[in-house]
Amino acid sequence: MIIVGEKINSTLKLPRQAMEKRDEAKIIDLAKRQRSAGASYLDLNAAMFREAEPEVMEWLVKTVQAATDTPLAIDSPSPEAIKRALRVNTNAKPMINSITAEKERFDGLSPLLAEYEASIVALCMDDSGMPETADERFRIAERLIEDLTKLGMKHDDIYIDPMVRPIGTGSHYGMVALDTMRGVKERFPEVHIMCGLSNISYGLPARKLINQVFMISAMNAGMDGAILDPLDKKLMSLLYAGEAVLGLDEYCMNYLEKYREEALEV
Amino acid sequence: MIIVGEKINSTLKLPRQAMEKRDEAKIIDLAKRQRSAGASYLDLNAAMFREAEPEVMEWLVKTVQAATDTPLAIDSPSPEAIKRALRVNTNAKPMINSITAEKERFDGLSPLLAEYEASIVALCMDDSGMPETADERFRIAERLIEDLTKLGMKHDDIYIDPMVRPIGTGSHYGMVALDTMRGVKERFPEVHIMCGLSNISYGLPARKLINQVFMISAMNAGMDGAILDPLDKKLMSLLYAGEAVLGLDEYCMNYLEKYREEALEV
Repeated sequence: MIIVGEKINSTLKLPRQAMEKRDEAKIIDLAKRQRSAGASYLDLNAAMFREAEPEVMEWLVKTVQAATDTPLAIDSPSPEAIKRALRVNTNAKPMINSITAEKERFDGLSPLLAEYEASIVALCMDDSGMPETADERFRIAERLIEDLTKLGMKHDDIYIDPMVRPIGTGSHYGMVALDTMRGVKERFPEVHIMCGLSNISYGLPARKLINQVFMISAMNAGMDGAILDPLDKKLMSLLYAGEAVLGLDEYCMNYLEKYREEALEV
Repeated sequence: MIIVGEKINSTLKLPRQAMEKRDEAKIIDLAKRQRSAGASYLDLNAAMFREAEPEVMEWLVKTVQAATDTPLAIDSPSPEAIKRALRVNTNAKPMINSITAEKERFDGLSPLLAEYEASIVALCMDDSGMPETADERFRIAERLIEDLTKLGMKHDDIYIDPMVRPIGTGSHYGMVALDTMRGVKERFPEVHIMCGLSNISYGLPARKLINQVFMISAMNAGMDGAILDPLDKKLMSLLYAGEAVLGLDEYCMNYLEKYREEALEV
């Protein structure tokens, strides 16, 4: 599983305050703790700063890469902020989070994808909005993969995010997301499936339970990347158990190692 | 989900002692607590008593049905013990746990299935043993369904158990069980999929994590019945969350009710 650590995010109060004060120590601490907890990428999000977003994003990239060589996930809808990040990035190949099939957003990011080597998270939505059915989502994913391939990207650098809607607003939205994942993975085995886990539980109580179950269900449907909090020990424990149950952890070696490191929370 | 409460089992120390002493109060307590916790069936197992099994089984049936009308799951490989149980059973249609495609076992139970109305758990094994691949298991399931149908049983009364082997003895055994479930459910949508959850984790540490993940994975593969401990609050919470995520709980009504009843453990 490719784990994108979600903690350096301006929508969260403490990280936002650290960004406001340009508090390097706090950001570096979040980066290092997520890395130790198993993050393959560190997500950087400064979207709450609006016009100042590109500047804060550049500061985040410089701050984090001075302290760790974990690849970065540049989390922004703004080509300008993404460009500033890519220009100063010196860590290994970054991930751009995210593109959609909306014409303006796609065209805005295309030149950057041609210029910089990066992988990309592609969300299943287009100018008509967030589609209702798994079929419609699959068709948008198909078009995104086709268009990104035309820009010279390899399937292995594309991460399709089905766009999860809360089951509290429609009982079928869990299956819509899972069926989309299964469809994309069957048709494009080299393409990755990635998604944020917490939307699914929006508006419901005991959200962690729903998020845990959705993560395991998504792994069953072919998800091989997740944007999550690697400091959530129970979630990570279920993730390692998931790899063992699904035959992705030969001889359960990694699971047993996590147990020995006392990283498992039962 | 159809939940078979597994606690009245002679392989567990305290229940076995209660059976030895014919301690009705202890058995009734286990029955009532499992029922309150959501058991659809109460499993009764006296197999550790060997020659005395039929007698202990009859006592269990009489004891439990005097205190609750929850249907019983008669858990035995012995036609004699099953017969004694069916003869005295007065609760609603019981479940027989279990039959296999082994000739002697199948032929031994067939007359009882013809005589008594019951549903049945059918294990994917035959005289050549426990098969290695999902394909072989599917073929045994197919034969069991065919032969049980010839005895007059409806698909809706058949519960196929894929036979779970521990992932600690082979990393692929989780997927073998899940692929078997998916295959049977696709081919025979009216047939139920049922299994015990704890074999999967045999020999590994932090077994509860593996069992939790396997339950959710099996629900994704079409399992609609499980033999488990309904007094395990965390497992039951994940089960309710699983029904919500998989679209089996309209408007998340049951999940929200369990939350209000403080039945959810996060």
